[in-house]
Amino acid sequence: MYIGIDLGGTNIAAGVVNAEGKLLSSGAVPTLSGRPTIEIVKDMAELTREVTADCGMELSDIKAVGIGCPGTIDFETGEVIYSNNIKMEHFPLAEEFRRLIDLPVRVDNDANCAAMGEYLVNGGGANSFMLITLGTGVGSGLVINGKVYRGFNGAASESGHMTLVSGGELCTCGKQGCWEAYASASALVRQTERAMKKHPDSFMHKVAEEFGAVNGQTAFLAAKGGDAAAQEVVDAYIRYVADGIVSVENMIQPEIIAIGGGISREGENLLKPIREYVESKGFNKFMKRTRITAAGLMNDAGIIGAAAVAM
Amino acid sequence: MYIGIDLGGTNIAAGVVNAEGKLLSSGAVPTLSGRPTIEIVKDMAELTREVTADCGMELSDIKAVGIGCPGTIDFETGEVIYSNNIKMEHFPLAEEFRRLIDLPVRVDNDANCAAMGEYLVNGGGANSFMLITLGTGVGSGLVINGKVYRGFNGAASESGHMTLVSGGELCTCGKQGCWEAYASASALVRQTERAMKKHPDSFMHKVAEEFGAVNGQTAFLAAKGGDAAAQEVVDAYIRYVADGIVSVENMIQPEIIAIGGGISREGENLLKPIREYVESKGFNKFMKRTRITAAGLMNDAGIIGAAAVAM
Repeated sequence: MYIGIDLGGTNIAAGVVNAEGKLLSSGAVPTLSGRPTIEIVKDMAELTREVTADCGMELSDIKAVGIGCPGTIDFETGEVIYSNNIKMEHFPLAEEFRRLIDLPVRVDNDANCAAMGEYLVNGGGANSFMLITLGTGVGSGLVINGKVYRGFNGAASESGHMTLVSGGELCTCGKQGCWEAYASASALVRQTERAMKKHPDSFMHKVAEEFGAVNGQTAFLAAKGGDAAAQEVVDAYIRYVADGIVSVENMIQPEIIAIGGGISREGENLLKPIREYVESKGFNKFMKRTRITAAGLMNDAGIIGAAAVAM
Repeated sequence: MYIGIDLGGTNIAAGVVNAEGKLLSSGAVPTLSGRPTIEIVKDMAELTREVTADCGMELSDIKAVGIGCPGTIDFETGEVIYSNNIKMEHFPLAEEFRRLIDLPVRVDNDANCAAMGEYLVNGGGANSFMLITLGTGVGSGLVINGKVYRGFNGAASESGHMTLVSGGELCTCGKQGCWEAYASASALVRQTERAMKKHPDSFMHKVAEEFGAVNGQTAFLAAKGGDAAAQEVVDAYIRYVADGIVSVENMIQPEIIAIGGGISREGENLLKPIREYVESKGFNKFMKRTRITAAGLMNDAGIIGAAAVAM
């Protein structure tokens, strides 16, 4: 058995996970980011004891603990080099956790954890597997031969910051034209809002009103209702997503690319046109092709992924 | 000792190479592409015997033969799946060569060979090494832990066909906005010609006249002479190159990126602004940074690279 801890900006979620990636028990407490980090670590340890007891086990039944954390992590030492969300800088997270619970601990970037979890549960032992998450940003994690690919320095797989439009929209990272600035859920919201301004009669206004705000579903829902302006937004957005996936595929040729994040719940509405675009525009025309699927893990992906990294 | 054979559209070049990547003897014959492929293979075998004799050796002194070939190669079987330049389709190149010379044979894509050669001679044992060649196209090869990274299907590392400008200029591959359509030497020639039309008084016209044609040096030379229009071309071109390198780095984080091809002879004129751009725009701000250098192997890179793949 393994413990997975998903240390997020809002909540700390933890659970007991078996070797097949099945969640046996789980719990969560608020992170209360901003308080002394050592307090957060104490809550992580407390939660670990609770979820272990919840499924009738003891700490001696646990082989290892995995912690997923946003930011830049030194995977070898378990040090959080920098995390904006949890306000950590050069914090020895694995070491501090081990002072409270003496078990092997692995700390990894949340995107790497998510990729490992998805690979474990839905990867079918693929030789290479990439998870691309369309959320607030565009995150990604690459698993090659069952291991997270990290580059020589641990900072690899930031596909959201590939250039998609040289000289284009400013990204939060400070560079212009990143894939993330066009293909994230936040980008889709911006694109939707722009189109709504241009088309005051569009059905998108009604949809947004109904949901109380513009979100990543607004254009998709209005397009399903036959709204032409919304369809334009959806088509352009899918093109941005697909164009970046072609880049990833031409570069990496992973056996499977799984697409996650809220937008991926559009399912075949999103995947089918992406596959068609990638099929027609990918450079590889003679060898086997990458399989493009939707990610399967939903709410518990963070916990399962963190546990997967510890396995 | 190893044999490296660089099978190009114009010439077949071959040589004897030692384990450190030093070329001991070499020779070349015209490819005469279009004749029966088996004739080309016979010439390759003949050349192998010649270069071996040239350095006072016999075939029994040769451990293995590497063949570099443009196109899509099945590295496992040594079959050329498709090569446009040499007019081959599903041709069992390794097998046919072995009928004439009974030695272990490896066939690989020319870009992979070039990367392995460069890695062997100038890689210093880096954990990960990428060669990016700015030539007719933008080619690249990635070496991870001393082995060419090929993806699950053998078609990886086509960084020239990452999207750099979504919806931008049409690439020879049929997709719009590929890095190659902006950062290859051919793209630079197009960009130079466009600027020359717009600026009939530019010094670029004089430079082009002197060299008999517009080429990849025209704008660089005119810019050195203080020509403002040429400087604009150079600045924009370097930005395109650097923007793609940021993509590669954010995705792969190789320890070293070496830039090859004719344009790389500009040396620090090219490398310095690229490094500055990548330093300021790369997503990784907290971990060690990729080292960006010029490729060292020049004319014999194809032979040495092919031999390196056979090692």
